Amino acid sequence: MKIYDTPGFPNPLRVRIVLAEKNLLARVEFINIDLTAAEHKQPAFLAINPTGTIPVLELDDGTYISECTAITEYLDNFAGNPTLTGTTAREKALIHMMQKRAESELIDAIGIYFHHATAGLGPILQAYKSPEWAGRTEWGQMHREKALAGLGYFDRVLRQQPFIAGEGFSMADATVLGGLLFAHYANIAVPEEYSALLAWKARMYLRPGVANA
Amino acid sequence: MKIYDTPGFPNPLRVRIVLAEKNLLARVEFINIDLTAAEHKQPAFLAINPTGTIPVLELDDGTYISECTAITEYLDNFAGNPTLTGTTAREKALIHMMQKRAESELIDAIGIYFHHATAGLGPILQAYKSPEWAGRTEWGQMHREKALAGLGYFDRVLRQQPFIAGEGFSMADATVLGGLLFAHYANIAVPEEYSALLAWKARMYLRPGVANA
Repeated sequence: MKIYDTPGFPNPLRVRIVLAEKNLLARVEFINIDLTAAEHKQPAFLAINPTGTIPVLELDDGTYISECTAITEYLDNFAGNPTLTGTTAREKALIHMMQKRAESELIDAIGIYFHHATAGLGPILQAYKSPEWAGRTEWGQMHREKALAGLGYFDRVLRQQPFIAGEGFSMADATVLGGLLFAHYANIAVPEEYSALLAWKARMYLRPGVANA
Repeated sequence: MKIYDTPGFPNPLRVRIVLAEKNLLARVEFINIDLTAAEHKQPAFLAINPTGTIPVLELDDGTYISECTAITEYLDNFAGNPTLTGTTAREKALIHMMQKRAESELIDAIGIYFHHATAGLGPILQAYKSPEWAGRTEWGQMHREKALAGLGYFDRVLRQQPFIAGEGFSMADATVLGGLLFAHYANIAVPEEYSALLAWKARMYLRPGVANA
């Protein structure tokens, strides 16, 4: 298997945590994509993922799988022992619900802020975002507020249960960790009063599957 | 089970197709949410879904599941015979990939256009969207273009294979059907040259699970 990604970035981190949790890191060849040069928006990359996002998984049969949730479903299920996406219908539902919330309330919101209210990854990539909005930052700022509200939401969740989707580690924990990494890059500090979220993060980085990702 | 939704709207349609395909419509009590009055943005609804979106599934044990993908994972798996979300790792991955693309390239893009470049569902709900952007429609127009590109992408997909995620009907077909319904409401006509997409839509509405939804 091959993974097209950029180490140290939020969505790549999500899949690298999944790989580490499943003891699959050594089974994968990583191919580096240069985000600041907008390599993921060029024809060669769009041919393997028309949506122009990383990471992408290439299976040994040549199939390309993009989108973190889809990649995770593959990696968690191909050996027949899913541990990150749920086994019962209720578990699957709760994990996918929290996975989506971690995307919409954190990663997507921070992404809009980062690319529309800051310099983002620099001028080459920004030209592929919404160039007509350069300098108009209210939309981005509104999403910074949404991301802060999202951090508060996950803090409240973690006051009720030890993991994002309930009693066990799941892909939704990896997604919130990706969100916190993105918040760090975007200079959105987690408010100190979100102590359950901060304690959960510290616990997560004690897991080999997170520390080794 | 209960479903909180509004009949005739795009995301509710996705779940109603799933219910019809699984022969579960008679097992569900529907509770109507008044979108034009922004009922889904009020505290009573936010208590059951903090993200403020419909539909929401209430299980008999009182658990609330929001997000169409999560609701579909529950409905497809609780009787132990998944038919819409894949059985092998590769099927699950391809279905989840196309599900996400149908959301990001169609439903989400049309939603941004509809709520930021048109009158949307009227002034009560629009006040919960991004009021400071009233009258600034370039962002919305850019997403109209994105949605049109998305329609072209799915047309190309359907020139290669009979269903959105491959050889069989899946939740991704329901999601693209939701996208086409939303496009219709937003006055985004499917270009006639997207004949594979239009032929697929006609075939889909011959399915009892789609026609009865």
